[in-house]
Amino acid sequence: MVDRTPPNLRVARTGPMRDERSIGTEDGRRPSLVLHVLGITLGVSGVGILLSAIVEAVSGGPHVLVMLVCGVVTATVGGTLWRSTMVPTRIELLDVFTTVTLAWLGLAVAGAFPYFLTGTIGTVDDAIFESLSGFTTTGATVLRPIEEASKGMLFWRSLTQWIGGMGVIVLVVAVLPAVGSGGMDLLQAEAPGPTGERLTPRVRHTARNLWVVYAGLTLVLAVGYAVAGMSVYDAVSHSLTTASTGGFSTKNASLGHYESALIEWIAIFGMFVAGGSFTLWYRLIRGKAGPLLASAEFRLYLAVIAFATAAVFVTADANLAGHDGVRTSLFTVLTVVSTTGYATTDFGLWNDAALAVLLLLMPLGAMAGSTSGGVKMIRLLAVASYAHRATLRQLHPRMVRPIRIGKAILDDDVTSRVLGFLVLALATFGSGALLIAWSGVDLLTALSASATAFGNVGPGINELGPSNDFLVLPRFARWVAIAEMLLGRLEIYPVLLALSALPRPGRLRRS
Amino acid sequence: MVDRTPPNLRVARTGPMRDERSIGTEDGRRPSLVLHVLGITLGVSGVGILLSAIVEAVSGGPHVLVMLVCGVVTATVGGTLWRSTMVPTRIELLDVFTTVTLAWLGLAVAGAFPYFLTGTIGTVDDAIFESLSGFTTTGATVLRPIEEASKGMLFWRSLTQWIGGMGVIVLVVAVLPAVGSGGMDLLQAEAPGPTGERLTPRVRHTARNLWVVYAGLTLVLAVGYAVAGMSVYDAVSHSLTTASTGGFSTKNASLGHYESALIEWIAIFGMFVAGGSFTLWYRLIRGKAGPLLASAEFRLYLAVIAFATAAVFVTADANLAGHDGVRTSLFTVLTVVSTTGYATTDFGLWNDAALAVLLLLMPLGAMAGSTSGGVKMIRLLAVASYAHRATLRQLHPRMVRPIRIGKAILDDDVTSRVLGFLVLALATFGSGALLIAWSGVDLLTALSASATAFGNVGPGINELGPSNDFLVLPRFARWVAIAEMLLGRLEIYPVLLALSALPRPGRLRRS
Repeated sequence: MVDRTPPNLRVARTGPMRDERSIGTEDGRRPSLVLHVLGITLGVSGVGILLSAIVEAVSGGPHVLVMLVCGVVTATVGGTLWRSTMVPTRIELLDVFTTVTLAWLGLAVAGAFPYFLTGTIGTVDDAIFESLSGFTTTGATVLRPIEEASKGMLFWRSLTQWIGGMGVIVLVVAVLPAVGSGGMDLLQAEAPGPTGERLTPRVRHTARNLWVVYAGLTLVLAVGYAVAGMSVYDAVSHSLTTASTGGFSTKNASLGHYESALIEWIAIFGMFVAGGSFTLWYRLIRGKAGPLLASAEFRLYLAVIAFATAAVFVTADANLAGHDGVRTSLFTVLTVVSTTGYATTDFGLWNDAALAVLLLLMPLGAMAGSTSGGVKMIRLLAVASYAHRATLRQLHPRMVRPIRIGKAILDDDVTSRVLGFLVLALATFGSGALLIAWSGVDLLTALSASATAFGNVGPGINELGPSNDFLVLPRFARWVAIAEMLLGRLEIYPVLLALSALPRPGRLRRS
Repeated sequence: MVDRTPPNLRVARTGPMRDERSIGTEDGRRPSLVLHVLGITLGVSGVGILLSAIVEAVSGGPHVLVMLVCGVVTATVGGTLWRSTMVPTRIELLDVFTTVTLAWLGLAVAGAFPYFLTGTIGTVDDAIFESLSGFTTTGATVLRPIEEASKGMLFWRSLTQWIGGMGVIVLVVAVLPAVGSGGMDLLQAEAPGPTGERLTPRVRHTARNLWVVYAGLTLVLAVGYAVAGMSVYDAVSHSLTTASTGGFSTKNASLGHYESALIEWIAIFGMFVAGGSFTLWYRLIRGKAGPLLASAEFRLYLAVIAFATAAVFVTADANLAGHDGVRTSLFTVLTVVSTTGYATTDFGLWNDAALAVLLLLMPLGAMAGSTSGGVKMIRLLAVASYAHRATLRQLHPRMVRPIRIGKAILDDDVTSRVLGFLVLALATFGSGALLIAWSGVDLLTALSASATAFGNVGPGINELGPSNDFLVLPRFARWVAIAEMLLGRLEIYPVLLALSALPRPGRLRRS
């Protein structure tokens, strides 16, 4: 196995921490990856809150002062952390996982303050729910009725998803592959190139390229939505939550509010692109269509969308007739597959055949290297290849046959991570559904709540239909959903490893 | 890897079939594993039908003649096949899988004749459903009302499960391990001994020992049920379907008919034993308790039963209070975990928290080396160990850490089969649920129908509760259930490989 760890991430895999970590450097900056990254994320978050405060001021909202204070405090804390710390010269692998987990938790907590302090959301844990649902680009909401919230706060709500999507790009494109984790290993196997690179200037370059795609998509969508008839405010808000596959809307009825076929087609385009691999889109923009067309994952993505849309459409539900029915079917399939979570129709009214398709799609997610959640198409290709080999080996036990995704061959250790992830995803989904059902929710709602939270989708089935929200669930179930949103977003491993690093009574006593 | 294939099963893994296969031997017997095994199973089945015809005659039922004819024809066809064929000197591995699949299908078809020809079941496909549900020890039924059927036919119905259980013992204890497949590899890893041996006299010896356990359990249960107040006929019938984890009852209300705590406790004992490893029970009888107590799978079996019973009980449903509630909870959990499928209560009336527990247990199954269906506890231990290693490898990529079940270490190829099975089981469960939902069933019913058919349990949830049956499903859904029962019983691989051996147009053209 080739060590793909970058020089500045060369890790001490065992042994005690280095002395230099607690000493600091000449200019007094403390080396700490966790605090440094937390500083950056809080800084970005603070700037976002300030931006939202401006929107609040311009729109004449009542919460300008509170939001300004929140923004200044968050930005100041973030900036101070950032400036008083530095990336250590030696990083423990475990630090990376802890950092990622704490970064998202820190964002969730910091982002919850405006909700709570402005009174937009009445309880602390619901504020954290809404904030984490934003930063994980899930889109599940506890804010009802949405349209009674101030414009600045709704802008902040949309912005959390966009910031979260930016974070996901760093996470899946730069951080996780550099430490040998994450679905991008797979993508790299299929499309070697500007992915899975190292946490070096080159990786920053890669991340910046993909941010350009992300920002470009956001801009195109904002213009599109505005041209199609949205107000500038709504157009920008929805562009932020489409590009990030988040799905928060400024309207109670989500995109269904506008009753505009054009807006829906724009959203269909946006969700399709946002669910695709940003690496492949970047190359397409640079004139290279080959990698996209050759991608087995992309073909599976298209096939799943086409098959599911056809399946939903031919259920011939009263709501789905003619070309409006095709659009609505395609929209709803894409909103689930891309894990966005917009709604144009109350699919809760559809028959169970269509709901079965949606429920099975919820934990799947779209392509690796996108901001979508869930298992991702590329992992399905890997486990299908694995199961195929396992079957053939019953006849030919000594058969040597690599695990393939399209024409690419997967390493054994990547395959092992994929299968391990599948097992952990099943365990997460199953225990989540069990706990949510135990809180007193009906079984189908519980199953869909677990699937939609883990898959970072948003809406569920039955009581969690698109016309509804997570407030119908008991408080305990919402905490379970919080845990599942985080596990789903970070692809489980980092959270488990961060938890395992928590000091335990036994350890403390020894040291 | 050591070649564990027995000498008389030494296989030609590639290349054309041997000439001797189509030539036959001096005494005119044609070498054919498929036909030979089919002959044995049909012979046993024919004798079973004749036995049931005697029961019919003694009880004064109307179908004696038809049943006699069915029995004689089946036994004659089976006997003729058996006597005119022989086990080939060389066996292709593929033949073994094809044989196993065709043996079960052959049993299902032969066993369906009495149902259809006596008019007990009105359509051919429902007769096949009932027959396959019996031979796979599932216990899903399309026979309503049960008590209107004749005693001879109901005895045949119970007997199919007992014959099926006998077949499962040969399958999982002798056949599959000999060709390097099946969950017993795992058991062998954990408890090396009289399992996973070869298709030699020694294996026959092993199988016979386990049949002794099986027959002994049946006898004990029959006596117990009779002493507890059942008629001899009912006692024997229920002993056949308890020992085989089948779950067919001679009463519409299943075991709930008797309203007897003693009978329920006997069934609880029977289901617990039948869901355990027959190898470990055999050793226990021989005075060796060590392997049982040391078995990690057995401890998980106990833990799951205890946890699920407590979970179901504390939902504090109105039906579950006091020590009757404990018994009912334990009974219902065991009926699902052991994949038996009896009922003493309409758990469809329970709240969704309890139903969630039952739904998650349905596809799990009990211990390997039992007649239970589903995934089996031991595979859970293996995949948990696998996921644990995959997580740790994120920190220590080069870590060498074996996959363990208790203290035993699994081979890589066994691990690969287990994970492949998990993937295939998920695909089977998911596509089954989708197809059943598509036939027009509500989603929860569809999910539970798929789980209960694949897990060889019997009852489901919602419309498929214990007070109901598979007749509530559309015909198409019942065919899906037929496929899932077979796939679940044979642990998928043999069926897939047998299907892959079907002549395809392309192949035919070439040859």
